[in-house]
Amino acid sequence: MTLNILFAGREAQFKTYRDEVETGLARAGLSAQVVQSHDPADVDYIIYAPNSAVQDFTPFTKCRGVLNLWAGVEKVVGNATLTQPLVRMVDPGLTLGMVNWVTGHCLRYLLEFDRMTHNPQQVWDDTPPPLASDWQVTILGLGALGHACATALIHQGFQVAGWSRRQKEIDGVACYAGPDGLRTALNNSNIVVLLLPDTPKTEHVINAQTLGHMPKGGFILNPGRGPQIEDAALIDAMNTGHLAGATLDVFRTEPLPQDHPFWGHPKITVTPHIASATRTNTAAASLVDNIIRCENGQPMLNQVDRSAGY
Amino acid sequence: MTLNILFAGREAQFKTYRDEVETGLARAGLSAQVVQSHDPADVDYIIYAPNSAVQDFTPFTKCRGVLNLWAGVEKVVGNATLTQPLVRMVDPGLTLGMVNWVTGHCLRYLLEFDRMTHNPQQVWDDTPPPLASDWQVTILGLGALGHACATALIHQGFQVAGWSRRQKEIDGVACYAGPDGLRTALNNSNIVVLLLPDTPKTEHVINAQTLGHMPKGGFILNPGRGPQIEDAALIDAMNTGHLAGATLDVFRTEPLPQDHPFWGHPKITVTPHIASATRTNTAAASLVDNIIRCENGQPMLNQVDRSAGY
Repeated sequence: MTLNILFAGREAQFKTYRDEVETGLARAGLSAQVVQSHDPADVDYIIYAPNSAVQDFTPFTKCRGVLNLWAGVEKVVGNATLTQPLVRMVDPGLTLGMVNWVTGHCLRYLLEFDRMTHNPQQVWDDTPPPLASDWQVTILGLGALGHACATALIHQGFQVAGWSRRQKEIDGVACYAGPDGLRTALNNSNIVVLLLPDTPKTEHVINAQTLGHMPKGGFILNPGRGPQIEDAALIDAMNTGHLAGATLDVFRTEPLPQDHPFWGHPKITVTPHIASATRTNTAAASLVDNIIRCENGQPMLNQVDRSAGY
Repeated sequence: MTLNILFAGREAQFKTYRDEVETGLARAGLSAQVVQSHDPADVDYIIYAPNSAVQDFTPFTKCRGVLNLWAGVEKVVGNATLTQPLVRMVDPGLTLGMVNWVTGHCLRYLLEFDRMTHNPQQVWDDTPPPLASDWQVTILGLGALGHACATALIHQGFQVAGWSRRQKEIDGVACYAGPDGLRTALNNSNIVVLLLPDTPKTEHVINAQTLGHMPKGGFILNPGRGPQIEDAALIDAMNTGHLAGATLDVFRTEPLPQDHPFWGHPKITVTPHIASATRTNTAAASLVDNIIRCENGQPMLNQVDRSAGY
């Protein structure tokens, strides 16, 4: 029997995923064809990008899993026609890329790279910079990505605090939960990193009030999802001098519109949604793993809790 | 009995070191006075900066240890009057600062921070950057600092190679030694980090020939010692397009003279000797530790091998 796997994603990525997934499954003794169209009633798995043409899951009566290509599921989790198991992409390449991006920008702010890379006055000021151990990084969201970043930042010597909806425990991380916990987590943060899932509850988590809980001179990193920041409040906090800087990788509209005030703001760095880029090779391996698990009767990894929304 | 500890270092740091060292020793039950001048025949230890007024160690007949305030000993190790044990500064603050600087600049080059922080055309190019696991960092010098940086870079996912005079073995690091080893270590390096001791043998280790062993598009980080780079060869390698960039923290003359071609070179970033800054509090703790060891008849840590020069 040959598995029918529908690829509902970007045309440009089709061949790469097809080859990697078919080869990976064949190595495990599973025959499969990855195709771009097929009789829905005969589809076993869907490799899925939420912005693809597939929006009605009703005809996929035999489908045993919808394998999301994105880490975020906010654009599919509310689809009422989706009754099949939905799994998030947890791509080791994506995780490492995120760890690299978050660690790099934390160190950039700690050591004031921007002052060194743009120094037309040739200023030589050898005051020792702070050590990572002098700074606290607070991570909002302690899922797979938040956890991995926390571990990496601890290795660099940072003090790390974290906040999540449900109370978590992670070695070496001061973990907080709930509204009071958020205030405490923000209070002593030199850098706040946004890695929350995108749900109605996390929209605008960074607003005028919560920015007020951060100490003066703090920094924001947003490699998570755009809507978590109230854009105008962030710009206000920069302009009044309360915040020292922000590096943003995700936005409500992408590419970020050319007339958006984030562009060209002296305290804001825009990066083009690269922190959480899925890498085809490592992502395909994780799709293959989950299909093998399901075919062997094991639960798939990273299944989405539909009631929580992530 | 009270220990007499001569402080031969910068005036501005005297009081801080005096207080930290006297308090630290008192906590261990040792009475000590840290002073800026004393009868040499009665001095037990010297806390020493190689650029201080003390250059003749002959009269310090009772001195049991010269505790260098710098990680580098090249300016004292050749002093023929020095017969007392000499120890290098291994300051946990200095080590962490170095790890932060090296990791940060490796990630900066990997993720092209400079293109993002200076982007007047508002270019949005979301091609996924390489992962740290796609790049090799080669560390020249595998002493305490090189070893710590290797470990941190491995944690960030980089492939790490290392080169040292004597063959070493470090988990996860491809270790090389000798002239042939140097060539191999440089061959596949995306980034080369210079952390060798400053000896006549390491001068100009980065020259036209060794730069030629690096692949096109590589980067150099020098947080070690200025003379290890042949400045003109480095600039040539930038101007011909062979190297993509360099970040230099140390120079033959510091501050770097205003008319030096490194300043303002579009591919070179100058940082003001901050990577290996000794932090008074953590450095004082390591001085205290060594004095306690010596008073208890234990060998001091980080003693200099006078024949090797470091």
